[in-house]
Amino acid sequence: MRLDDAPPVLVKERPLRIAVVGLGPIGLEVARALMGRRDLRLAAACDVVPSLAGRSLADLIPGAPGIPVDGTLDAALARGVDAIALCTSSRIEAVAGDLARAAVAGVHVASSCEELAAPPTEGAAGELCRHLDEDARVAGVTFVGTGVNPGFVMDRLPLQLAGAMVRVDGVRVERIVDAGKRRGPLRAKVGEGLTVEEFRAGIAARRLGHVGLPASAKLLARGLGTTLARCDEKIDPVTGEGRVLGVHQHLVAETADGRPIDLLLQMWVGAPAPHDRVTLAGDPPLDVRIDGGTQGDRATVGALLDALRRLPRAPRGLITVAEPY
Amino acid sequence: MRLDDAPPVLVKERPLRIAVVGLGPIGLEVARALMGRRDLRLAAACDVVPSLAGRSLADLIPGAPGIPVDGTLDAALARGVDAIALCTSSRIEAVAGDLARAAVAGVHVASSCEELAAPPTEGAAGELCRHLDEDARVAGVTFVGTGVNPGFVMDRLPLQLAGAMVRVDGVRVERIVDAGKRRGPLRAKVGEGLTVEEFRAGIAARRLGHVGLPASAKLLARGLGTTLARCDEKIDPVTGEGRVLGVHQHLVAETADGRPIDLLLQMWVGAPAPHDRVTLAGDPPLDVRIDGGTQGDRATVGALLDALRRLPRAPRGLITVAEPY
Repeated sequence: MRLDDAPPVLVKERPLRIAVVGLGPIGLEVARALMGRRDLRLAAACDVVPSLAGRSLADLIPGAPGIPVDGTLDAALARGVDAIALCTSSRIEAVAGDLARAAVAGVHVASSCEELAAPPTEGAAGELCRHLDEDARVAGVTFVGTGVNPGFVMDRLPLQLAGAMVRVDGVRVERIVDAGKRRGPLRAKVGEGLTVEEFRAGIAARRLGHVGLPASAKLLARGLGTTLARCDEKIDPVTGEGRVLGVHQHLVAETADGRPIDLLLQMWVGAPAPHDRVTLAGDPPLDVRIDGGTQGDRATVGALLDALRRLPRAPRGLITVAEPY
Repeated sequence: MRLDDAPPVLVKERPLRIAVVGLGPIGLEVARALMGRRDLRLAAACDVVPSLAGRSLADLIPGAPGIPVDGTLDAALARGVDAIALCTSSRIEAVAGDLARAAVAGVHVASSCEELAAPPTEGAAGELCRHLDEDARVAGVTFVGTGVNPGFVMDRLPLQLAGAMVRVDGVRVERIVDAGKRRGPLRAKVGEGLTVEEFRAGIAARRLGHVGLPASAKLLARGLGTTLARCDEKIDPVTGEGRVLGVHQHLVAETADGRPIDLLLQMWVGAPAPHDRVTLAGDPPLDVRIDGGTQGDRATVGALLDALRRLPRAPRGLITVAEPY
């Protein structure tokens, strides 16, 4: 009975048994974070890297339970799992096989895969996503992609804030990150130290820059009950002393019902006054600022844990964080 | 199929038919706001005030559909209703009868009733709420109380933000409202113009002050998966030139697992730099500021509309905004 003063629903049920699949930086942090939870329990860990298979998770994370690292998803699922934290890839094609396996096993998935956060609808990837959605529905399970961006700052947070508004007329989000305070991979991703020519080539080849903005715009439109009529993104370098310090990305979109969406992302070494800011035009207007910004690596782990705990009650199929769930 | 580019789930289904019950300031604004929605449809309006019964809603709201105002809930429900926006009272005892009727009719309820937002568990009111919860479950419907405070700034918003955190160690919320910019009833509620003695007497008699802080603390604890171990609130007048300008309310609480909750509400005429600020200690920490604050009357209407659209997918029973739904 939820009205007595005992802890609420999920805690009183059996903890959800989680397999962490993909033991890179995010997967390891998810595993570590699971150790502190009562509502979620680390039940299995899996990575295809041969050097990890057979080792104990306690070798990789001091203080972790002595769970052997499985080399295949099937071996991990055999340990008794309710949901997977899938942290293997940013690409849908690379996670589709594991999602299909999860459906067969009747297991939910929350993934850090950026492309899964706003599943494509066109072309081969769109076809693949329709199959994954169908597989999940038939199996009675839920797949969702999330993280900090896409997954929180530029999509879910504005939509949550919209829950206190009568009418949303437009969305603007700016996120200013000092890349100098982030992990090496992020600094490489924003092109630190390159020449402008190398940067432009890397952006053109999609090796550089942040790929999440169009996904966030799509999620915003979806959460506002409409679609995107147009969406354009411009990516420029921020430079200092002739070298690239990072990226300045600006997306301008409009929904099918004429509402503007404006997303600005700056990630460069030395960016002053890092912050996130969400400005919602409408009734009432809301102007929300997060000083210092939402720390990306930690918030991605937080968003994954939150998605995991919501899975049992979420709608079935391949859903997004824009769905009210 | 949710993955194509058509508008998402709720819009494609039949709009939810809403009866607005209680045509005071909030009820009328909810009715007005429903006129602009595609996913919600104003289907009935009801008030027990004899002077309203039989009049057309269009007399009360210019441009509203010509729905006759019903004098009884049964008459309103007979028009074909999926959910009620119940805006009659802040007291559970005063809304319980209508909730029981809604259960019998198989109709959901979202209410601005502050006491319903964090249902009491003790005494006669607790017993009443257990019955209402049982009624709703048996009928397969959902009851929820919401608004701006309780319902958003001091409870739901911090819990939503916690969805990007690995661990929450403590919650602090401050809300500074310039009462001079709000409706007359709010200015009266904060004691504007009284002597300090009159103010103290009004607080003691529970005629004055804002009653939502303990409810928000309870919702926060619940959303964090625990309960409150202690909760103390202090209410003082803010004065100028010998007269009361408004209230300074400070709640200090601690969860059963030792996490501090600190809620500060200032509502007084002339309060400078109105804002809401949510500070979450933990991993990652979050410091969120809403400049100008969340406009209370409009956000209450917004929160009610958001609750209404979520009702079909919400858990059944008497739930709160602290549940992940």
